[in-house]
Amino acid sequence: MAVVTAIAVAGLPEVGEGDDIAQMIVASGAAFGDADIIVISHKIVSKAEGRTVALADVVAGEQALELAASTEKDPRVIEVILRETAVLVRAERNVLICRTRHGFVCANAGVDASNVGTADTLVLLPREPDSSARALRARFRELAGCTPAVLIADSFGRAWRNGQQEVALGVAGLRPLEDWRGRRDGSGRELSATWIAVADQVAGAADLARAKDSREPAVVIGGLGRYVSAEDGPGAIALLRPAAEDLFG
Amino acid sequence: MAVVTAIAVAGLPEVGEGDDIAQMIVASGAAFGDADIIVISHKIVSKAEGRTVALADVVAGEQALELAASTEKDPRVIEVILRETAVLVRAERNVLICRTRHGFVCANAGVDASNVGTADTLVLLPREPDSSARALRARFRELAGCTPAVLIADSFGRAWRNGQQEVALGVAGLRPLEDWRGRRDGSGRELSATWIAVADQVAGAADLARAKDSREPAVVIGGLGRYVSAEDGPGAIALLRPAAEDLFG
Repeated sequence: MAVVTAIAVAGLPEVGEGDDIAQMIVASGAAFGDADIIVISHKIVSKAEGRTVALADVVAGEQALELAASTEKDPRVIEVILRETAVLVRAERNVLICRTRHGFVCANAGVDASNVGTADTLVLLPREPDSSARALRARFRELAGCTPAVLIADSFGRAWRNGQQEVALGVAGLRPLEDWRGRRDGSGRELSATWIAVADQVAGAADLARAKDSREPAVVIGGLGRYVSAEDGPGAIALLRPAAEDLFG
Repeated sequence: MAVVTAIAVAGLPEVGEGDDIAQMIVASGAAFGDADIIVISHKIVSKAEGRTVALADVVAGEQALELAASTEKDPRVIEVILRETAVLVRAERNVLICRTRHGFVCANAGVDASNVGTADTLVLLPREPDSSARALRARFRELAGCTPAVLIADSFGRAWRNGQQEVALGVAGLRPLEDWRGRRDGSGRELSATWIAVADQVAGAADLARAKDSREPAVVIGGLGRYVSAEDGPGAIALLRPAAEDLFG
């Protein structure tokens, strides 16, 4: 009987620029092994990587000032969002829906003002989340003598449904998708539409193991060794659907 | 240290019309209690409720024949999909994106030809999945002497991201959303965008505990008692965003 488990890592200190997150998780005494997945909130990764912006240093440009008039946002916040944005998908009701330079479609290009230590500091998404995940995984290998998979997560809104769900921004050593299309089910019928977003479901499962205000930005997922690989694999970029192929968006 | 667990229910027989799914799960010897959530694939609920259609009995109407020409689908399958559809959102590349009569936006109005015992039988979504969940919960109360929450799940495609994720179609006794908007985080900052789609993340976590071809349509989720309530609550309908408010879709 396979059991999937999700356990939050307790006792992590506040993370700042230059901090060694893998070392902090190892030092916390969290138990994990090669078949486990360590899910880490992108915010601490971004903070460790210095991907923050002090609002006081930002000067809003023309487009930001225009959008500020219609969205009630601080024009400097919009300026930062636009810098992270490849395509502005929609701008309405105080929310900008953006396709980021990475290719993620999300509110405010993933720029976040919550859970930051200093007021008026914005946290951006990691520059290359798959690279961040691979670097974290390599560091676990060095420090812990085992090589868990690493997943960097953020919470995104979705089309048509209320609430946010955690998704994978970056992964290393985790198969992001499981493709059953063309395979047969128990009765011999083709599982034509079954293509499972494993990494996003792992991110969501991890989110359930912690409370948002409990400062538990890392969660260990066990029981999913079948999705964990020795090689780092394609990364979470495999989850991004090219805009031209999108039917839902 | 809170642990969230997901364990598939083993040994369930094939489900047919009129079958008592709660009784089957109890008879399987699955362990669960008041604080647990039993996640059930919608397909067995639909089959037990007789929500299936034999393709041989279907006559395609005019719109179905037209759409068949452009999508390469069997016109009778399209006819069944259209009967379940309130609004046809998009029709392209062999996929119809539909808003169902319930309000779900998904491919083919949730009509599914996989995992059905008989060839050429289509499985529809349950007529009222929240009612189905409440009925199942009441039946567990009668049979098992405890009252777990019940979640009925299906896998949906999403905008902008590859792969499918399980979502909640119906829930009873589970808080579908957790709203942190307006609350303060650890540093006193407002968690302005944090509104967690708990039920969908629970559905996704359950999906990780089984393989698609393993005939394990039920999974017990433990460790989330904080989301389980004695009353049945608002149901999964609370997850549906009114079309007029949608920014992402």
